Amino acid sequence: MTFKAAKYLPILDWGRSYKGETFVNDGIAAVIVTIMLIPQSLAYALLAGLPPQVGLYASILPLIAYAIFGTSRAMAVGPVAVISLMTAVAAGKIAAQGTSEYLATALLLALISGIMLLAMGLFRLGFVASFLSHPVISGFITASGVLIAVSQLKHILGITASGHNLVDIVQALGAGLPQTNIPTVIIGAISTIFLFWVRGQLKPLLMKIGVSERLAAIATKIGPVIAVVVAILAVAMLGLADKGVKIVGDIPKGFPSLSVPEFDLDLWRSLLASSLIIAVIGFVESISVAQTLAAKRRQRIDPDQELIGLGAANIAGAFSGGYPVTGGFARSAVNFDAGAETPAAGAMTAIGIALATLFLTPLLYFLPIATLAATIIVAVLSLVNIADIREAWRYSKPDFAAMMATIILTLTVGVEAGVLSGVALSIALFLYRSSRPHFAIVGQVRDTEHFRNIARHDVVTNPRVLTIRVDESLYFANARYMEDAVYDLIYNKPEIEHVILMCSAINDIDLSALESLEAINERLNTTNIKFHLSEVKGPVMDRLERSRLLHDLSGAVHLSQLDAIVATSGTSHGTELDFHL
Amino acid sequence: MTFKAAKYLPILDWGRSYKGETFVNDGIAAVIVTIMLIPQSLAYALLAGLPPQVGLYASILPLIAYAIFGTSRAMAVGPVAVISLMTAVAAGKIAAQGTSEYLATALLLALISGIMLLAMGLFRLGFVASFLSHPVISGFITASGVLIAVSQLKHILGITASGHNLVDIVQALGAGLPQTNIPTVIIGAISTIFLFWVRGQLKPLLMKIGVSERLAAIATKIGPVIAVVVAILAVAMLGLADKGVKIVGDIPKGFPSLSVPEFDLDLWRSLLASSLIIAVIGFVESISVAQTLAAKRRQRIDPDQELIGLGAANIAGAFSGGYPVTGGFARSAVNFDAGAETPAAGAMTAIGIALATLFLTPLLYFLPIATLAATIIVAVLSLVNIADIREAWRYSKPDFAAMMATIILTLTVGVEAGVLSGVALSIALFLYRSSRPHFAIVGQVRDTEHFRNIARHDVVTNPRVLTIRVDESLYFANARYMEDAVYDLIYNKPEIEHVILMCSAINDIDLSALESLEAINERLNTTNIKFHLSEVKGPVMDRLERSRLLHDLSGAVHLSQLDAIVATSGTSHGTELDFHL
Repeated sequence: MTFKAAKYLPILDWGRSYKGETFVNDGIAAVIVTIMLIPQSLAYALLAGLPPQVGLYASILPLIAYAIFGTSRAMAVGPVAVISLMTAVAAGKIAAQGTSEYLATALLLALISGIMLLAMGLFRLGFVASFLSHPVISGFITASGVLIAVSQLKHILGITASGHNLVDIVQALGAGLPQTNIPTVIIGAISTIFLFWVRGQLKPLLMKIGVSERLAAIATKIGPVIAVVVAILAVAMLGLADKGVKIVGDIPKGFPSLSVPEFDLDLWRSLLASSLIIAVIGFVESISVAQTLAAKRRQRIDPDQELIGLGAANIAGAFSGGYPVTGGFARSAVNFDAGAETPAAGAMTAIGIALATLFLTPLLYFLPIATLAATIIVAVLSLVNIADIREAWRYSKPDFAAMMATIILTLTVGVEAGVLSGVALSIALFLYRSSRPHFAIVGQVRDTEHFRNIARHDVVTNPRVLTIRVDESLYFANARYMEDAVYDLIYNKPEIEHVILMCSAINDIDLSALESLEAINERLNTTNIKFHLSEVKGPVMDRLERSRLLHDLSGAVHLSQLDAIVATSGTSHGTELDFHL
Repeated sequence: MTFKAAKYLPILDWGRSYKGETFVNDGIAAVIVTIMLIPQSLAYALLAGLPPQVGLYASILPLIAYAIFGTSRAMAVGPVAVISLMTAVAAGKIAAQGTSEYLATALLLALISGIMLLAMGLFRLGFVASFLSHPVISGFITASGVLIAVSQLKHILGITASGHNLVDIVQALGAGLPQTNIPTVIIGAISTIFLFWVRGQLKPLLMKIGVSERLAAIATKIGPVIAVVVAILAVAMLGLADKGVKIVGDIPKGFPSLSVPEFDLDLWRSLLASSLIIAVIGFVESISVAQTLAAKRRQRIDPDQELIGLGAANIAGAFSGGYPVTGGFARSAVNFDAGAETPAAGAMTAIGIALATLFLTPLLYFLPIATLAATIIVAVLSLVNIADIREAWRYSKPDFAAMMATIILTLTVGVEAGVLSGVALSIALFLYRSSRPHFAIVGQVRDTEHFRNIARHDVVTNPRVLTIRVDESLYFANARYMEDAVYDLIYNKPEIEHVILMCSAINDIDLSALESLEAINERLNTTNIKFHLSEVKGPVMDRLERSRLLHDLSGAVHLSQLDAIVATSGTSHGTELDFHL
């Protein structure tokens, strides 16, 4: 029982040896992350189309839940950009921003994706995330970054504009342009320039004046806090709110009331697909952060337990007025750099955010939306990764195709269409490639026991014996291709008496491929060609022994290709031949 | 130009050397196939829910079209059982049997699936059919056989009953049972018993009295004609039509009028999925018949040209009052056994059916439906293949699962759901298996240069060096699994200084897997473990050279595993170790 509990509750593991020193380190990290997380939470709530306090709520109980169930020692969960965008898209299909239905839908997305993550963890279905290939994730993140940045321009301009793809957003921005509010543009522009400067120049500057690299990196991440404080003071003192600058305004003070998500079956059903995408994207983002940080300290991440941790975090968010969360890269790196040693740092961050929710919100009254938008823009533009696109082009054209399809569809149709078509195309391209495996006719390298491709090497062959090597496991999608290839190779070659299939690269033969081998054997037999197998691997042979192929085989199974040549040619060296494909 | 025409018109190839002797042989085969095809065409039209003459029409122009465009020398195309059932299901979703809309829908199914086949042939997309794995096809054919046989019981009982899955059909039969017509049951039962006897007993009997095996086989296939003739005489002479025995009745005499399928965009769209399934199933059935017959004479089948041939046949059918057709196994075998040498036999069969349509239809007036149903039942029960189910169970559990899913869903939900879920499950199971490849930690076999799995062989390893062999190409679906596996293997083993990935079984590394290798390299590096590759295949190495992995690699790429061990251990033999997974 204890063993089982420890398996699902990593807190029992690290909690047992928790020391005062660790507490201090975790506490320092928590303070820094809290300061960083306050403006982020507000900004991402804005991106998700939710009231600012929802971002704070999503940074309290979910962090506690992850601290109990998660395996990463330094992960900081909470609202992140891409998931916030996906929440806006999914909830926007159900209700209009600002309505209570919209709020309820965001809660429900957290609940359903939380349940899905939890179920994937308990049933060990985390491999589902593997089908999001790297080019699809990379293309999706890049396109989302562009989409988010462009969508935030409306707040910088002080206009209203909406849309879930680039075309709609740009059109809406164009239409709204005449309503541009100049004071807002000034605040937005200064905030953006300042934040870009902090991101690019602050760290080297601090290091030049003697600040350690770690501290400089942390200071850089706290830049948004400075922007927020200055912007609040500027708006309050210059009375800009009266000049059309939109501000955060009243944030309900105090703890979120415990919320109970709606149980409307139709609503649940219509959110299933979106929730799954949010769950999987969130998991992929989170696990890669967790693995990176864990590797630095030779710690271990259990992906199935991570699913449980993230699931618990989202479910906790759903019952405390939050919306979907996951592990964020920037804040986890800050947490790690600031010295967090255990998930207790996350729990302490939650307490920090809770205190901020209780006491700090009145101070945020004059915070201009434009500054929050600037923090989003600067954060998400770092997600845009052109180098990855170039690398995909150089390394692999199918991967490039999947990436471009994802980018183009994400930008022109929307985030869900982008991800889904990227995944579908990756799988289709993989299946297509494996359905036409590489075939080689092989011959013997003179005076050796090696057999190589006749097209690439100077080898000896016997005109009466044709040896074919397939460089792939045989399964339904390539079985018929192999059949056709064998028939093509013997067509119009009446001299052939033996066909040998060299199986050295075959790790598996499924039932369809077995049927194809039986068909080849039978059809070759009707034309008096004997069919042989050579170099069959142990596990494949075990399986073939359960079939009737070995019994029906007109030729034989040979341990080595050399044995096969000796048996069919009567000599260990074939006679030379000008026989090519 | 001539070359191109010959490529798409195989008739130019065999037509050039056509001789009188070939004509005689083709003619004899055509007469036999015509006799066999008349009752079959009527029966399968009945199964498709169409008037009997539609079956005859589908056996005229389609045969001519196939003779011009097809590559199989002995293939006989026309209506077949499974495609007729699928036509009934697809058309039944649009209109009720007996209406002109139903007839128009059947025409349209032939046209759309014909266009799809043609397009697949021209764009060389025949590989799509590969995704119908053998267990799915086998399960589908078996379940269809059961479904068809049960659905024909209503004609044997002389009642009305409908439904497209076993549950519906059995319920309808039960409800109709009180209306059973006794004379119909007698005719149906006698026909069925007679046809089973012909199928099982006639051939050995004829051979015993000295008939050659080939002739006996042909005679067996003509059994249904005898049943039809006797049944017509019985009904006519005993006046059974007045006693409630349903008969074929008036068949419009003469050629079909040229039909023009409807161009209703919504109707087309709603038939796309069904047409694709009909096209692919028809192609799979046809190509396997063609390959089997071609192999017997060392002839060659071009699958892409076969698609064009079948596409042309279906389009021809659509414009001459027919419905979807494909190459049938039984009739093609008869054609082959009867001596058909070229597709001219098919064209002559078409002339035979045309003559029958002109002059023979009045003779079919008294043909009882029950006898046609009996020919269907006896034909389709031979499709049921229990041995295949047993073989799948014995050979491979995933294949068995795909087969059973197909069978169960075909019977309980319907033919389309059955095929689609079978295909989806096959692909999912394949992806799942390839997403968790086999890993082995390898060590050196004492006093050799061979490296084997430490779990299976008595090998030597060095505690500072971990060598991992992956037995699968690396791609997105298994990249993360590999990453996790490597991290797990080094976790809590501070003695490890080198990790070697032995790549002898890796045929490809896609971009996702490359990223994973880079992540492994980077993360191992942060803990001072060097990462090496060994035995990388040539094409994989070519590709890796276009990436930054080789530049960033903390270790090195070694030509052989032995080189890798020498480089990392400083000796060609590792020290022994009690280190196991």
